[in-house]
Amino acid sequence: MPRVTDEYRAARRAEIMAAAARLFSVNGFHATSMADIIAEAGMSAGAVYGYFRGKEELIFAVAGVALSAADEAFAKMLAGDATPAPAEAVATIIEAIDTRIAHDPDTGVDLTRIGVQVWAEALRNPQMLASAGEVYLRLRGNWTEVARRWQRAGNMPADADPAQAGAALLSLVQGFMLQKLLISGLETSDYLDGVRALLAAGPRDR
Amino acid sequence: MPRVTDEYRAARRAEIMAAAARLFSVNGFHATSMADIIAEAGMSAGAVYGYFRGKEELIFAVAGVALSAADEAFAKMLAGDATPAPAEAVATIIEAIDTRIAHDPDTGVDLTRIGVQVWAEALRNPQMLASAGEVYLRLRGNWTEVARRWQRAGNMPADADPAQAGAALLSLVQGFMLQKLLISGLETSDYLDGVRALLAAGPRDR
Repeated sequence: MPRVTDEYRAARRAEIMAAAARLFSVNGFHATSMADIIAEAGMSAGAVYGYFRGKEELIFAVAGVALSAADEAFAKMLAGDATPAPAEAVATIIEAIDTRIAHDPDTGVDLTRIGVQVWAEALRNPQMLASAGEVYLRLRGNWTEVARRWQRAGNMPADADPAQAGAALLSLVQGFMLQKLLISGLETSDYLDGVRALLAAGPRDR
Repeated sequence: MPRVTDEYRAARRAEIMAAAARLFSVNGFHATSMADIIAEAGMSAGAVYGYFRGKEELIFAVAGVALSAADEAFAKMLAGDATPAPAEAVATIIEAIDTRIAHDPDTGVDLTRIGVQVWAEALRNPQMLASAGEVYLRLRGNWTEVARRWQRAGNMPADADPAQAGAALLSLVQGFMLQKLLISGLETSDYLDGVRALLAAGPRDR
């Protein structure tokens, strides 16, 4: 019964990832050991290592859950020839972060906390830096597409490079994640009003 | 000769901070021990502990160097009744980061890397979270002032809350720091062109 076996393996894998996500989000990447994860998952070391070779592989798997949710939100937002205004695109993605990433439906874990751990660890681990770099280039690519469509509709200077505006849009999301975690009392709706006000501020800066 | 003693103490304090900054920026906060810092500073443990009670105090002292540079850049930019356009204010602060914070004149250390370590550590250390939260509220206050003046000059919707726009402006800087560290080949001038294009993108989003 290979189908049952695959399902069983997928469920075990998900259990290990959930255990790792809970620990990483509370204790951080560095203060969480594989032994902690094995204990939290309630499995044998051999079982856990059969799925994941180590902490690096596990944190990327957990971060991948957040990225999949973001990818889905982008795909839905950009379906067909939709041309969302930049501030509304930021609102759409940040709402997806609030509902699906800051409260992962499967584990209840705030996966944005895992993102910050990846940032810090990438600075001391070259392999992690390379992987994180690829991920952020891909996310920036989605924002570049938002800017490209907005430009194509005549709403951004024709000589602007959409990839550069894409980097600025990505910042509006990264900064939100960070401020929401570090500044107590930051309300998502206030932040989005701020993005709208800023992007509506004239006159043209150049 | 109390004056000489004060100078001596200040120099020793700076040496310890430089040693800590070098280690934190390469190995991260968690993988750097007080013993490592003591060895790097080339002093006795007693001498080092006479200046700093522990790693938390040291990383905040090091981060404080970066914050002082940022505070100075804001004070200069907002002197008198200057009303910089938001995109130009972002350019001014990011140029200060590039020249004074990403290459600390005293140590050569990239202090933006220390910032990311503070973010990650704040998520597992309530005292550090409280301190980081205060710091980011203060930085946001500077951006709120930029937005307030821009609004007063008639360039932002009158019903917008400058503090909310300030949070979005802070994101444009935080995202820059992060992308510069994680995405290889990001050029500051490209990023700033992107910010200008985005803030010049119309029509009004609301």
